[in-house]
Amino acid sequence: MDSVWYDGDAVGYLDQRALPREVVRKRARSVDDVVDAIATLAVRGAPAIGIFGAYGVALAAQLHAGDRPAFEAAAQRIRGARPTAVNLAWAVDRVLQSPGAEREEAQRIHEEQRDVDRRIGEAAIELFPAIGNVLTHCNTGPIATGGDGTALGCFVAAHRAGKKLHVFVDETRPLLQGARLTMFELREAGLPCTLIVDSAAAITMQRKDVRAIVVGADRIARNGDTANKIGTYGVAIAAAHHGIPFYIAAPRSTFDFAIESGDAIPIEERNADEVRIAADDPVYNPAFDVTPGRLITGFITEYGVLAPPYADAVPDLEHRPCLAALSR
Amino acid sequence: MDSVWYDGDAVGYLDQRALPREVVRKRARSVDDVVDAIATLAVRGAPAIGIFGAYGVALAAQLHAGDRPAFEAAAQRIRGARPTAVNLAWAVDRVLQSPGAEREEAQRIHEEQRDVDRRIGEAAIELFPAIGNVLTHCNTGPIATGGDGTALGCFVAAHRAGKKLHVFVDETRPLLQGARLTMFELREAGLPCTLIVDSAAAITMQRKDVRAIVVGADRIARNGDTANKIGTYGVAIAAAHHGIPFYIAAPRSTFDFAIESGDAIPIEERNADEVRIAADDPVYNPAFDVTPGRLITGFITEYGVLAPPYADAVPDLEHRPCLAALSR
Repeated sequence: MDSVWYDGDAVGYLDQRALPREVVRKRARSVDDVVDAIATLAVRGAPAIGIFGAYGVALAAQLHAGDRPAFEAAAQRIRGARPTAVNLAWAVDRVLQSPGAEREEAQRIHEEQRDVDRRIGEAAIELFPAIGNVLTHCNTGPIATGGDGTALGCFVAAHRAGKKLHVFVDETRPLLQGARLTMFELREAGLPCTLIVDSAAAITMQRKDVRAIVVGADRIARNGDTANKIGTYGVAIAAAHHGIPFYIAAPRSTFDFAIESGDAIPIEERNADEVRIAADDPVYNPAFDVTPGRLITGFITEYGVLAPPYADAVPDLEHRPCLAALSR
Repeated sequence: MDSVWYDGDAVGYLDQRALPREVVRKRARSVDDVVDAIATLAVRGAPAIGIFGAYGVALAAQLHAGDRPAFEAAAQRIRGARPTAVNLAWAVDRVLQSPGAEREEAQRIHEEQRDVDRRIGEAAIELFPAIGNVLTHCNTGPIATGGDGTALGCFVAAHRAGKKLHVFVDETRPLLQGARLTMFELREAGLPCTLIVDSAAAITMQRKDVRAIVVGADRIARNGDTANKIGTYGVAIAAAHHGIPFYIAAPRSTFDFAIESGDAIPIEERNADEVRIAADDPVYNPAFDVTPGRLITGFITEYGVLAPPYADAVPDLEHRPCLAALSR
């Protein structure tokens, strides 16, 4: 199931807000449409946003052919549609730096993501027992990445390799990406899975013999501090408390080598109406939190699993060439 | 706002499922009505269930006057309407042991609860700073107890004593008692409050300088292990991680002196439809979890604050007379 594609004069996407009740495909025909689809979470998941943004910039190049300033302004609008994930800015910049070949560059980013997801999944297989329970938070499957998925791709790769995993899925309030999307993807992939409310993660770790936890990431700092969907930090604290390995599955493009620690990651606060019942209740609604690197057992990347100390391992990753560059 | 009352030939109650959108008062006229109101969470909150169950037994005595076996069978049905909270069984047994004076005994339980809540609130005041943020989970106010509340009553008592508290409220999935009831009660009481999704509790502790966490309890074992609303355990783990004091506010009647540890507390699992979106998704939906005594800074009771070691403090509490007995 493709979540994002280019179809000539528009960027196609699966409207993730309608899942699992309906599979709704839409077409973004303007820069406004592209920005709107990202801002309203019709397209979400850091890698999928990157690919969608890249196609969006290719569309803008087509719409503003011959008017570079208008094209660049459009690209900057797409780049700023959401502030936390680094993939969007990274992908937009790559396409901007490919004048005359925007569409090809966007397609290359998409192909690379598929390749990266496959490699992440392969790197993860050895981390799981032959049989056992695992747990995840939010959504990191094909819908979110445009490939096999990051964290969810790890479970799927292990499943394909014959390991018998059972996945506990946090529903992931306020927007229920776990309940709506991850459960849907796992069942499509044939993996046994069980839905829980977010606050049941701790009792699940305590009573259900959870052997590993894998989640995705929106941005990773040089010291391993990781921004991901709100709730990830609490899951990581509970994992440490129970002695359960806690992994982040993320491609190199999610690492922000320009920032030293999570303190430099802006945390998007979203609309109070996502949470409240009474119309005028005050709400604190951060969309992400930052998990300190010291709570993370390892990073599962397309280059293998990074182990602590991350202040060494992450800069080391920076100096490895992109797989894309290798394959060109 | 009374949540439970006796009105002659029925037990009145506030239907908590309709809040905050509507204030709906109902009357339970039969034992079936009483059991149904408890089982469907129209009446919830361990102390409120106890009072409601007591009035229910008084109603049963009236309905089955002269037929002790039918009366006792009815009382046992009420006693078993929910399995985890100890107050219900405790209150039903007290009324059963007051033949011919069931209604008076139920009213005495209600009066005692009001007195107990007041004492719990007074005991808590010194635990809070003059100004600062606090956090709670689920609902423990007047709606839940029939008095001033337990954990929420602590905040209200401090507020009345001039302390400037700001309460962060976990929404408390799946049934949203925090978002629906606690926000409503805090605003009625004039306390500044902010709603968060449950999984934002950890980032709130990290970034909002939370000075104390207070929650209620459904059952407390001799070693301090405490069953409370699902999610409490994760909040307690995160509190310990951040070095924030974590208190349980509960009356003596919530302590189950007959059990040594939390291992003996049955955990009610509720219907999957409370959680899932897709109709056939498998769900693990425990209504409670058990927080180990070692994660609990203190128990705020009507006899003052119990400090560790609980293996000494809880049995000591057992041997103190009920305040009720003192005041008779």
